[in-house]
Amino acid sequence: MQRYFITSEEKNTELITGEKYHHIVNVMRAKINDEIELSYDGVIYLSKIIEINNASLKYSVIDQYYFDSEFMFNVTILQGYPKGDKIDDIIKHSTELGVNKIIPALMERSIVKLDENKRQNRKERLQKIALEASMQSKRNVVPIIGDIVGLNKIDYSEYNIKILAYEEEAKNENNNFTTIIKSLKKNDNVIIAIGPEGGFSNNEVDYLKSKGFVACSLGKRILRTETASLYVLSAIGYEFL
Amino acid sequence: MQRYFITSEEKNTELITGEKYHHIVNVMRAKINDEIELSYDGVIYLSKIIEINNASLKYSVIDQYYFDSEFMFNVTILQGYPKGDKIDDIIKHSTELGVNKIIPALMERSIVKLDENKRQNRKERLQKIALEASMQSKRNVVPIIGDIVGLNKIDYSEYNIKILAYEEEAKNENNNFTTIIKSLKKNDNVIIAIGPEGGFSNNEVDYLKSKGFVACSLGKRILRTETASLYVLSAIGYEFL
Repeated sequence: MQRYFITSEEKNTELITGEKYHHIVNVMRAKINDEIELSYDGVIYLSKIIEINNASLKYSVIDQYYFDSEFMFNVTILQGYPKGDKIDDIIKHSTELGVNKIIPALMERSIVKLDENKRQNRKERLQKIALEASMQSKRNVVPIIGDIVGLNKIDYSEYNIKILAYEEEAKNENNNFTTIIKSLKKNDNVIIAIGPEGGFSNNEVDYLKSKGFVACSLGKRILRTETASLYVLSAIGYEFL
Repeated sequence: MQRYFITSEEKNTELITGEKYHHIVNVMRAKINDEIELSYDGVIYLSKIIEINNASLKYSVIDQYYFDSEFMFNVTILQGYPKGDKIDDIIKHSTELGVNKIIPALMERSIVKLDENKRQNRKERLQKIALEASMQSKRNVVPIIGDIVGLNKIDYSEYNIKILAYEEEAKNENNNFTTIIKSLKKNDNVIIAIGPEGGFSNNEVDYLKSKGFVACSLGKRILRTETASLYVLSAIGYEFL
């Protein structure tokens, strides 16, 4: 059954309009009495369509349940902005794999150049990709896309576990990815930084370490930037299955 | 340093020609005395280029070592042939994540239609993608691309652990993905079957079960076909880091 994320207004009025209306009525060709799943604030409302008008539909809730497909902690991926449209795939895969927030950060070795205006448009497009992937994979919540900014514009104080996926630096420290993951607890707020294609610059490594990040190797294989986030999220999903 | 896979002949003659020669000399613009890594049969030969001719180069081995980035068992992904060029990305990601063999199987719900001739060409193209991804991620071996065939043309007798990634069927059985993965031992030969976009047909599930596959859920989230293999391989990599 198709699942849609609704707003508090749509929840209160039991009325759906706009793009969601268009998708339900024109794309999915739903009819009166058809059932849909509406997701609001982590609760799934099994609902029946009771009225279809030109630009809106009314529904009534039949049942509600809490199916939790979420981690018991929050996971943010701080992703060095990659080349081309790789960020789209990273968001799709990461959403399926349970990420809570993705910050597409402009790092020194990111090739992309985006002025203020473009950043906002891009962010909105990426948020839409996250929404669609959330519907498809039946997430309870939609991952948040952070502002597309440099590393120095990000507030790291909300995170209590900060991991820097950086092979070279990890050799000098003694942090084991598995040990950190296994130690995650309920309501932890984890952020994992992954470099763009050329990796982190030395400045960036120093800066993130000054913000409390610990360097960690992701294993003995060399992963591309677009594979690293999937590896991390799969590992967390596997550990906390 | 760039790593190339060499043949037994190239190993014996210490002479490289053809595409590899072209890549080393024309793409990477290597010069005499430059070092390259040559991989043969799981051993890495650190080599120096000693002569560059019009269509061949000679090298001599400086050092050899065995850097093992491989699993201690064999992992085959039996992948239902997906839409479009998704198979390319699956091969790239899976190669990075340590797969040993990928069988792109034509399942009932695979959309793609390929006649005999096209299958052979396609297989060769996919093998090339696996080779390039192996070089990039510094694998010791290149994953094998299996013949593009139906499920009834595959020999399952070589595998001792057979997993069917199928949420629905898993509900009726009591197999836990984590338990199976944790129990993997040296030299096991594992095959994991993943359906195409529409999933397995009932016939396919019955057929694979008759061949000894056990159904297993990959977790509480719904994964697309192109994400399932990455999840499985990441989980194995994480468990046996």
